[in-house]
Amino acid sequence: MAERPEMAEVVAGVRLGVASASIHYVGRPDLMLMEIAPSTQCAAVFTRNAFCAAPVVVAREHLAKTMPRYLVVNAGNANAGTGDAGLDDARATCAAVAELMGCRFEEVLPFSTGVIGEPLPLARLVKGLPQAFADLRPDGWDAAARAIMTTDTRPKCVSRRLSVGGQTVSVVGTAKGAGMIRPDMATMLAFIATDAEVDREVLRRCLRQSVAASFNAITVDGDTSTNDACVLLATGLSGVRVREGNVAYDIFSASLSEVCTELAQAIVRDGEGATKLITIEVEQGRDEAECRRVAYTVATSPLVKTAFFASDPNWGRILAAVGRAGLEHMNVGEVAIHLGDVCIVRNGARDTDYTEARGQRVMASPEITVRIELGRGRAKARIWTTDLSHDYVRINAEYRT
Amino acid sequence: MAERPEMAEVVAGVRLGVASASIHYVGRPDLMLMEIAPSTQCAAVFTRNAFCAAPVVVAREHLAKTMPRYLVVNAGNANAGTGDAGLDDARATCAAVAELMGCRFEEVLPFSTGVIGEPLPLARLVKGLPQAFADLRPDGWDAAARAIMTTDTRPKCVSRRLSVGGQTVSVVGTAKGAGMIRPDMATMLAFIATDAEVDREVLRRCLRQSVAASFNAITVDGDTSTNDACVLLATGLSGVRVREGNVAYDIFSASLSEVCTELAQAIVRDGEGATKLITIEVEQGRDEAECRRVAYTVATSPLVKTAFFASDPNWGRILAAVGRAGLEHMNVGEVAIHLGDVCIVRNGARDTDYTEARGQRVMASPEITVRIELGRGRAKARIWTTDLSHDYVRINAEYRT
Repeated sequence: MAERPEMAEVVAGVRLGVASASIHYVGRPDLMLMEIAPSTQCAAVFTRNAFCAAPVVVAREHLAKTMPRYLVVNAGNANAGTGDAGLDDARATCAAVAELMGCRFEEVLPFSTGVIGEPLPLARLVKGLPQAFADLRPDGWDAAARAIMTTDTRPKCVSRRLSVGGQTVSVVGTAKGAGMIRPDMATMLAFIATDAEVDREVLRRCLRQSVAASFNAITVDGDTSTNDACVLLATGLSGVRVREGNVAYDIFSASLSEVCTELAQAIVRDGEGATKLITIEVEQGRDEAECRRVAYTVATSPLVKTAFFASDPNWGRILAAVGRAGLEHMNVGEVAIHLGDVCIVRNGARDTDYTEARGQRVMASPEITVRIELGRGRAKARIWTTDLSHDYVRINAEYRT
Repeated sequence: MAERPEMAEVVAGVRLGVASASIHYVGRPDLMLMEIAPSTQCAAVFTRNAFCAAPVVVAREHLAKTMPRYLVVNAGNANAGTGDAGLDDARATCAAVAELMGCRFEEVLPFSTGVIGEPLPLARLVKGLPQAFADLRPDGWDAAARAIMTTDTRPKCVSRRLSVGGQTVSVVGTAKGAGMIRPDMATMLAFIATDAEVDREVLRRCLRQSVAASFNAITVDGDTSTNDACVLLATGLSGVRVREGNVAYDIFSASLSEVCTELAQAIVRDGEGATKLITIEVEQGRDEAECRRVAYTVATSPLVKTAFFASDPNWGRILAAVGRAGLEHMNVGEVAIHLGDVCIVRNGARDTDYTEARGQRVMASPEITVRIELGRGRAKARIWTTDLSHDYVRINAEYRT
């Protein structure tokens, strides 16, 4: 039975329930409640957008005071750009959960995702809470993943079962996000739980490290959301203790990175209108920051993205994007660019062996790696992005209609 | 006769000719030759893209040595990302013009625009030169504007006739550009000529000032081209002398700014797939740099641009873009955002008087001004951009096919 994949999507100490509250969508679950065992440690990272949403402000405040017992998440309304009224609504949401569940107000963390700038329909949200409460169950991860979707076309849920000295640890995570994706210190909404026992400081460090190379290494449209949040919960109920330096730590942190990376890639694959997953690797830079700058300049260039959509090996656009990334004293004669296993640019100009047919062969693939060698150091960075398609424009032109 | 608009498009001392050289396009002029009187002073600014094109390198070299007698411009091939062979081709183009016209090699400046990374078809270009020579005429500005077009749908030519103490001065300019538009110190290709007499240093200063608030204040897709160049020529043949501080200087520099701004706006209006001209004004910043950063973050956001395309007053996307612009210590409670004459955000949240109907009314217009008040200083900046439409994706997915 342990081999059945759905068996993995349970974390001892975590129950999830959903409800259809008609917050924006009609006839589908759009409210999610997560119940967490009292022993649980929590770490979280949030958006750096200066206009961060009301629930982000309130979740930060509550997390600074105590560990959470409940997370409450709604889709369809971001409760962002809503001023003091929005803060009142986020706090009222927490108060309603606290009253229903019998916990303290600060033990509830609120999250919202959806349209920015419209008042949260608080009454409908509160009315949906008893249904979500009645629905609480340990195997509710997949239903939860569906309830938090907005323009996502697929639920995103990733799990791992780890064996540590004969004992079993679960790591399960869910995320949503398809547009306004260029996370900065956090992503869209992501909730990850484990039944490992992890101190708060260790948990924070594990989360920071995993997020840096996963959620913080993706872009769909370059737009950092007002509501990004990534929460990591450790209930400790597996009895396996993760401490810095022990075997469990290595296994757990590697597994957490895998879960985060798989969820981050799932967000990009489901990016608005995406038809391709593009990996951009920048190597031989002076430091990681300049490698990331080059990678993001290429990844957010509309000209590069439309060329990927068209499966057109128009590598001049990649070269032009590298050239405008603003690196000081760049010697273009040192730059090489590879499309998959094909070298297209060497010493700053078209490789003598390159042919359009070889470039075309790589571009036809749904998953493409662009590798850029800067020839000025040893640092590197890797990010993931999508192409820019007709459907991206359609989805975002029609979003509110 | 002086009132006929086409009469204005002559600058004493400048002749232009075009030819169909089949460099990329077939059956349309794609080669332009500009002949300049010997007395002419020249100032120019070029792209800051590290991968600047071969003709940009050669034009810079030549301009450092002497004033030009001829400009030679081809459309359809950028001669960029072409390495040493590209430099040889650009120099060979100049040599061919010099031999044909009987001037020195360094007195020719080459310019190219089109696909990046393909070898310049030098033989076809050289073969077209006699036809362009035979076509040279003072009133060739409109034909020249058409010959340098790539994805442009309209020629861009702007002229002014100035009266200075009873004498007449002409200022005429042409520009091309519709994609890869985010000029940095220069724009696409722009050629402006006057018959005023202007010292080289004064000419340079006038050009820098005019370009900063015109070509360097536009973006279509955020992509800085490898070939941007803006050239200003002063033949002196009107007999009107422009010196710093005299009346002619004030009239001339104001007129030059008008011509540059009108050409820059024409590039944006003709931006790939553009259906709207968006003006973004950022005010009350600490310095101009942060105002420009906010303006460009809003102007290059695909979510903001698709909302403009859809005429959807989805102002949350504007607010989110302002929030992610990376301003230090931004107090969002001080921020106000106006859409045309309608205040949408005040004190960081939706203005109490705002209604969707009022926002919708502004968004329905083909020309929209977004005004953002940061509430932290006295600096300001203004830029122009376009929306992001289905046609943008179509044009750039099909560009090389």
